[in-house]
Amino acid sequence: MQDILNDILQTNKKYANYGQVATYIPELKKARRDDLGICIIDKENKIYAVGDYEKKFTIQSISKSIVLAMALMDNEWEYVFSKVGMEPSGDPFNSIMKLETNDTKKPCNPMINAGAIVTTSLIKGDSPQEKEERMLEFFRRITKNNNIGINYDVYKSEKISGDRNRAMAYLLKNDGFINGNIEEVLDLYFKQCSIEVDALDLARIGLHLATYGIDVENGERIISENVCRMVKTFMVTCGMYDASGEFAIKVGIPAKSGVGGGIMASVPNKMGIGVYGPALDKKGNSIAGTKMLEDLGKKVQINIF
Amino acid sequence: MQDILNDILQTNKKYANYGQVATYIPELKKARRDDLGICIIDKENKIYAVGDYEKKFTIQSISKSIVLAMALMDNEWEYVFSKVGMEPSGDPFNSIMKLETNDTKKPCNPMINAGAIVTTSLIKGDSPQEKEERMLEFFRRITKNNNIGINYDVYKSEKISGDRNRAMAYLLKNDGFINGNIEEVLDLYFKQCSIEVDALDLARIGLHLATYGIDVENGERIISENVCRMVKTFMVTCGMYDASGEFAIKVGIPAKSGVGGGIMASVPNKMGIGVYGPALDKKGNSIAGTKMLEDLGKKVQINIF
Amino acid sequence: MQDILNDILQTNKKYANYGQVATYIPELKKARRDDLGICIIDKENKIYAVGDYEKKFTIQSISKSIVLAMALMDNEWEYVFSKVGMEPSGDPFNSIMKLETNDTKKPCNPMINAGAIVTTSLIKGDSPQEKEERMLEFFRRITKNNNIGINYDVYKSEKISGDRNRAMAYLLKNDGFINGNIEEVLDLYFKQCSIEVDALDLARIGLHLATYGIDVENGERIISENVCRMVKTFMVTCGMYDASGEFAIKVGIPAKSGVGGGIMASVPNKMGIGVYGPALDKKGNSIAGTKMLEDLGKKVQINIF
Amino acid sequence: MQDILNDILQTNKKYANYGQVATYIPELKKARRDDLGICIIDKENKIYAVGDYEKKFTIQSISKSIVLAMALMDNEWEYVFSKVGMEPSGDPFNSIMKLETNDTKKPCNPMINAGAIVTTSLIKGDSPQEKEERMLEFFRRITKNNNIGINYDVYKSEKISGDRNRAMAYLLKNDGFINGNIEEVLDLYFKQCSIEVDALDLARIGLHLATYGIDVENGERIISENVCRMVKTFMVTCGMYDASGEFAIKVGIPAKSGVGGGIMASVPNKMGIGVYGPALDKKGNSIAGTKMLEDLGKKVQINIF
Repeated sequence: MQDILNDILQTNKKYANYGQVATYIPELKKARRDDLGICIIDKENKIYAVGDYEKKFTIQSISKSIVLAMALMDNEWEYVFSKVGMEPSGDPFNSIMKLETNDTKKPCNPMINAGAIVTTSLIKGDSPQEKEERMLEFFRRITKNNNIGINYDVYKSEKISGDRNRAMAYLLKNDGFINGNIEEVLDLYFKQCSIEVDALDLARIGLHLATYGIDVENGERIISENVCRMVKTFMVTCGMYDASGEFAIKVGIPAKSGVGGGIMASVPNKMGIGVYGPALDKKGNSIAGTKMLEDLGKKVQINIF
Repeated sequence: MQDILNDILQTNKKYANYGQVATYIPELKKARRDDLGICIIDKENKIYAVGDYEKKFTIQSISKSIVLAMALMDNEWEYVFSKVGMEPSGDPFNSIMKLETNDTKKPCNPMINAGAIVTTSLIKGDSPQEKEERMLEFFRRITKNNNIGINYDVYKSEKISGDRNRAMAYLLKNDGFINGNIEEVLDLYFKQCSIEVDALDLARIGLHLATYGIDVENGERIISENVCRMVKTFMVTCGMYDASGEFAIKVGIPAKSGVGGGIMASVPNKMGIGVYGPALDKKGNSIAGTKMLEDLGKKVQINIF
Repeated sequence: MQDILNDILQTNKKYANYGQVATYIPELKKARRDDLGICIIDKENKIYAVGDYEKKFTIQSISKSIVLAMALMDNEWEYVFSKVGMEPSGDPFNSIMKLETNDTKKPCNPMINAGAIVTTSLIKGDSPQEKEERMLEFFRRITKNNNIGINYDVYKSEKISGDRNRAMAYLLKNDGFINGNIEEVLDLYFKQCSIEVDALDLARIGLHLATYGIDVENGERIISENVCRMVKTFMVTCGMYDASGEFAIKVGIPAKSGVGGGIMASVPNKMGIGVYGPALDKKGNSIAGTKMLEDLGKKVQINIF
Repeated sequence: MQDILNDILQTNKKYANYGQVATYIPELKKARRDDLGICIIDKENKIYAVGDYEKKFTIQSISKSIVLAMALMDNEWEYVFSKVGMEPSGDPFNSIMKLETNDTKKPCNPMINAGAIVTTSLIKGDSPQEKEERMLEFFRRITKNNNIGINYDVYKSEKISGDRNRAMAYLLKNDGFINGNIEEVLDLYFKQCSIEVDALDLARIGLHLATYGIDVENGERIISENVCRMVKTFMVTCGMYDASGEFAIKVGIPAKSGVGGGIMASVPNKMGIGVYGPALDKKGNSIAGTKMLEDLGKKVQINIF
């Protein structure tokens, strides 16, 4: 496996040249476009990793899958799905249009911004502080990394330039899908996007989902089997922005990407995968990272279909 | 398994009352709303079946998955995907809008009408007759049923009332996604929708996809492994109309439904499933049939995620 | 003329039964559905009026035409039209969709909410207080009524339930069409909507536009001829929500309606018209009020086309 | 007036360089981009003309206004407006989307392609030949030019490349807005677009509408006053494609343009105007032609608002 990883890293490094680092907030522009790394942890807890797998970056949209898990653990599932849908949207992640044209006006799914703002609003806690602490604690447990924290420069940058998300949140409030103070919900949303991780952390999360919620080291359960399945299902149908369908055809595994350059993938019963490569394609996915997963799929049978 | 099927049939028969048989063409209105049947064929070729599993009905949209397989076998994959996309549309199956608002104007995927008209146009043959014969022959091989044929009353009905599909086809021609004579393409499309099957036939197709293309009886291969995986992937992301995401969350298996009341499902490495229940929900899926699959998933581990 | 007004009031009173008073904010629900009044002031300053023409109500969207005039007087026209378009939208007044699908993302025109929030942001003043005072002063001059003021109950109600407008405003800020503090802009917008007028006040405004900006009593000019023409043009193409085209065909005069039940109309070179009738049709126009104007057009040549 | 026309022709000739002749059918590409001409006929039947005002070109969308008049004379108005709406669409002339997203699915208005295909289908006649003859005869009477005929090269070109219009027509048939044979309706539609005129002919049509249907030479009436008003109303709200609102603000007169390079305008009670300039802007309007009308409006009071 280590050889395979070395190989696909070398083969795909060139693709970074065809992509661009995210530029919508100044902080993200600082990423080095050529960075590339991948980490795999298998069911036996063996770790394989190459390249910039220990480089820190912000988790961005990948957090949507973890916050979805929290929302499903903090609330009745029916309640959650009365506030956010289960369908792929066919539109870009930050689209507002469907909130108006949909019969229900409900966000299509928890993997687009509108849906993730809703799931964020469903995290329980007596105060904004408690919600933030519960969220960070959950990320620390699921990554088995107590150093997980927020990159405050990115967070502030997100908050200042977050008017499009703000617009969505007010529309969602207007239509009854979010209760409470919008700025508080958005604050937690921007914080969740600004959590710093590396590819190793992502592989750990992917493994956790791959084992249906059981920690391979100590046998403890953090997330229930059903919630793990739901999260992986959304990762397949909506995890790679509006290239989710193509990724499912070409690679065929649950995966969630973020504009920070990360991809977290999970091969049921087999392994968790973390990828870092901040050069993005037009849809917002790591361009070399996606190519590495395609190549991995050609060499190792990971396709679930 | 037989007991489980008896059980879920009884439990879910009542749901037919909440649905309606398709009415957009007169022929489909003749279906008996209360009919319900299910058939499973497992990898050992064991057949379990209850209810109206031998009742004939027209395959309708389920044919989209088989014609996709043919298109992928008759053409270079790249060529096929230059004419039809890979993404869920987030819109109803007969929507025209995305053909206009999409950057590419390409049909989103081969499971909506626009996309299936494209894949139909990609079936090879020197004449309309030869294309029709090749298509029928392929359906006969994959169902292992030489009696498979077209219901000409439904076909004529489809053809007469097919102006919406005709509109799509001309738009697709205008935008360069279909070549050739539109009425010929539509004729083959309407014929494919009007092929008569029963739940047993559908289970056989599902099994074929579940075994990655190998006939469990004689070890022969009809469809390649990769094409089987692609078809199943599209079934997950787009197979159940605009309830595909919900079905993936609740059942988690590749499935394709048709407004004739059929559902063809495939559990990789395990079984093929055929369902018949013509009472449909608002999105066009068999209402009791979907419920039966949900219940089956609660009793047997079939979820692939 | 007085006889004609008496006549059309009687004939059309019954239509109130087919409409509903606005209910999106509690305060508007208090209106009496059966109220109906009309007032005409001609070029010779003769006033004709019947029914509830002195009943107070909030001006709502009618203010959009006056604030547009202010924005065009406070700024270079080119600057104004770099922030708001000139085209009918074909969509409901509170639609967000076009802000996303339009090439420019600019609000289509100043008569829909999004556009009016932009023109409101263009009113000059060193402080929110000064802007509000300038706006009220302008309304008082143009209505020749020094008692014009804000209904604070309606204003508070608008502000509390204004999350859809808030969403639009943040989207407009995100896309560069509004600068500055959003809550301040919205506050002025909600206040402008909550200004109290009667049909007499509206007729006076209409007359002012009809005389191209010259006060018929003292010959003073408040608005320039060109701005008057522009406002009347927008009233024709976009003044009656998404029934503007129908109103232009059936009546053929510049008119602007509000969900408070008012219609302000202007017949160039002839007269100003004010209408009050709070029972609205589905598109938000006074149902009996619109019918009265249709009937007026059958008896008096007012059609400008 | 003649001096004014000479002047504005010289001033605006340069704008042709910023536009392009229509290229969607080969025949239209043959136009000379630099051609420019304008013709005015006033109420006293005085003709003023400069430049290429006798150059022949195909009428294209300008025919929509004349066919609308015919449809309104051949049918009850209520029936016509049950098949086509009265609202500006806010979308390009050949947009299909609104046919799907509109509540009614009705074409928005008779000035976009979809709407004009409907009005074409409403022209009376016992056979396609009779309909064509009646249409040509009407064009000849209204232009007072017996030589009016069809450019068959353009017509054939339109017919071959007309799949987008064909798509619309089938959708309209599917939704009940067109009856009868689609190819016959389209044939008449393509023929109407291919009628050859010059700027003089267009000025004559514009004058006819300006005098509310009375021939200034012989006092005969061809079109009723009300139909003239309706046609001019649609010209204002929807006559200049999706720049109609801007044209109304900048010039303020009823006008209808075509991609052949013509503009037919009508100043009520004053004059008819015909323009020819085949270099188009992005929205499909003659670029120098539009500029000439703007300049004319600055020198002569023609604005109706």
